[in-house]
Amino acid sequence: MSGNGPGNGPLAIICGGGKFPFVVADAVAHSGRKPVLFAILGWADADAVARFPHHWFGLARFGRFRRLARQEGCRDVVIIGTMLRPSLLQLRPDLTTLFYMPRIARLLRGGDDHLLSGIGRIFEENGFRLVGAHQVAPGILVPQGVLGAHAPSARDQVDIDRGLGVIAAMGPFDVGQAVVVADGYVLAVEAAEGTDQMLARVATLRRDRRVRLDGKVGVLVKAPKPAQDRRLDLPTIGNRTVAAAREAGLAGIAVEAGGTITADFAELIAAADAAGLFVLGVPPPASRAAL
Amino acid sequence: MSGNGPGNGPLAIICGGGKFPFVVADAVAHSGRKPVLFAILGWADADAVARFPHHWFGLARFGRFRRLARQEGCRDVVIIGTMLRPSLLQLRPDLTTLFYMPRIARLLRGGDDHLLSGIGRIFEENGFRLVGAHQVAPGILVPQGVLGAHAPSARDQVDIDRGLGVIAAMGPFDVGQAVVVADGYVLAVEAAEGTDQMLARVATLRRDRRVRLDGKVGVLVKAPKPAQDRRLDLPTIGNRTVAAAREAGLAGIAVEAGGTITADFAELIAAADAAGLFVLGVPPPASRAAL
Repeated sequence: MSGNGPGNGPLAIICGGGKFPFVVADAVAHSGRKPVLFAILGWADADAVARFPHHWFGLARFGRFRRLARQEGCRDVVIIGTMLRPSLLQLRPDLTTLFYMPRIARLLRGGDDHLLSGIGRIFEENGFRLVGAHQVAPGILVPQGVLGAHAPSARDQVDIDRGLGVIAAMGPFDVGQAVVVADGYVLAVEAAEGTDQMLARVATLRRDRRVRLDGKVGVLVKAPKPAQDRRLDLPTIGNRTVAAAREAGLAGIAVEAGGTITADFAELIAAADAAGLFVLGVPPPASRAAL
Repeated sequence: MSGNGPGNGPLAIICGGGKFPFVVADAVAHSGRKPVLFAILGWADADAVARFPHHWFGLARFGRFRRLARQEGCRDVVIIGTMLRPSLLQLRPDLTTLFYMPRIARLLRGGDDHLLSGIGRIFEENGFRLVGAHQVAPGILVPQGVLGAHAPSARDQVDIDRGLGVIAAMGPFDVGQAVVVADGYVLAVEAAEGTDQMLARVATLRRDRRVRLDGKVGVLVKAPKPAQDRRLDLPTIGNRTVAAAREAGLAGIAVEAGGTITADFAELIAAADAAGLFVLGVPPPASRAAL
């Protein structure tokens, strides 16, 4: 096992909301490694948490996490699942977290990457090793190629290239994992609202005829920001994304292969096939440049 | 008078919706030049149109426009006011327009700049000269400096610089005249939805605590895209922008001085002062680089 890859001891999984934490925990258990869930109060799904060895803790109780994770013998830590950016006023820090509060306050004044990489450094200074969910559960990564029954047209490909260009251009500003492009026209750019809400906006613009496009046209393009720490925040898609893309009248979805995660690949593709949408895994930028 | 500036004959003003066409027509009349309004059916305000020499025409009736404008002796043309991107299916072109339809169809498959500069070229090929509304009515341009009773803080200035950076980066993709940045975090990027709707989204994100910011923080930043044809589509602000920015909990508005237009400057500043928001006219990029 290489020095940079995950180790073999018990793995701490800090669990936010949604299904991902449990898909990852199942994959880890299946690989023969013990997952220990650190479920965040208010976010993690209690029924699913109960299926695994676990502890509950408050978001700002880093001291409690550190003590329990050390007791459990966890050196590697995965952070996965939905969480909102907290307000400082709402955090109720324990003593250890209090020590880090000035740094956390500075981190909160910035984009998501800035916040997450700063949080990651705090874990590492305390002897933990931050591991990407996709490193311990590679099955969640979306693969390359045409992934369902439908394929993108040449017209869709123009939209896909333009969307990837916008995401790359905005990367330095720590914004925009996703855009919608239709007929070469950038209809929507995602910032703090999230992909589903961006797609709902496109659906409304089309329904109200504020954007006039005839037929099933346009692509949702998602890819990690160029400088993003992939251990902490990979773009996600799922059958809800497919439903929202269909409502927006799009032709399909293109995501960066190996740089986008999905909790249930089979379910995703079944939904896309049924909705008549293509799902394309595009090669990551290095391979694209080499083409 | 230089060869590139507007001439002195009657000026054709192609009028979309909103107040701008009439502010421009009044300014032109006041300068001693005759405005002739070409009011677009379904968009221009009939009562206001009636105050000026005018003709009505359908959006795709270029032949009718060309004939009437030549009869009126108009060589210079201003296009101003709100209009939606039409659907090809909904256009009812006259014969002259029909001749241009293949080109228009191609222009519609692209961003706003692409569409507008292509339309501009069609006018020029027919012997008209396209003139910016701000060239014949310079009073609509937002000037430089702190423009109301409130001034941006150092914290706001960081957000302003970041917003200008995002707009510059997205310019090549013909998207994003406006962004909202708060505490260095890009909350929203405008694409097809328009500024008011983008601000409403920020208000909702904050109200639902999906974005957690305490107090009056964040800036709406608007500037023309770097490659934009300024004769056709300058960013606009007004008292509705101020109301939407206040609802979004922002500290103020920063726009490119000399590159943003407003229909009633005094009304804009009165609204901003009353709402406790700053309005800043930032120097255009060339001057910024020279600072």
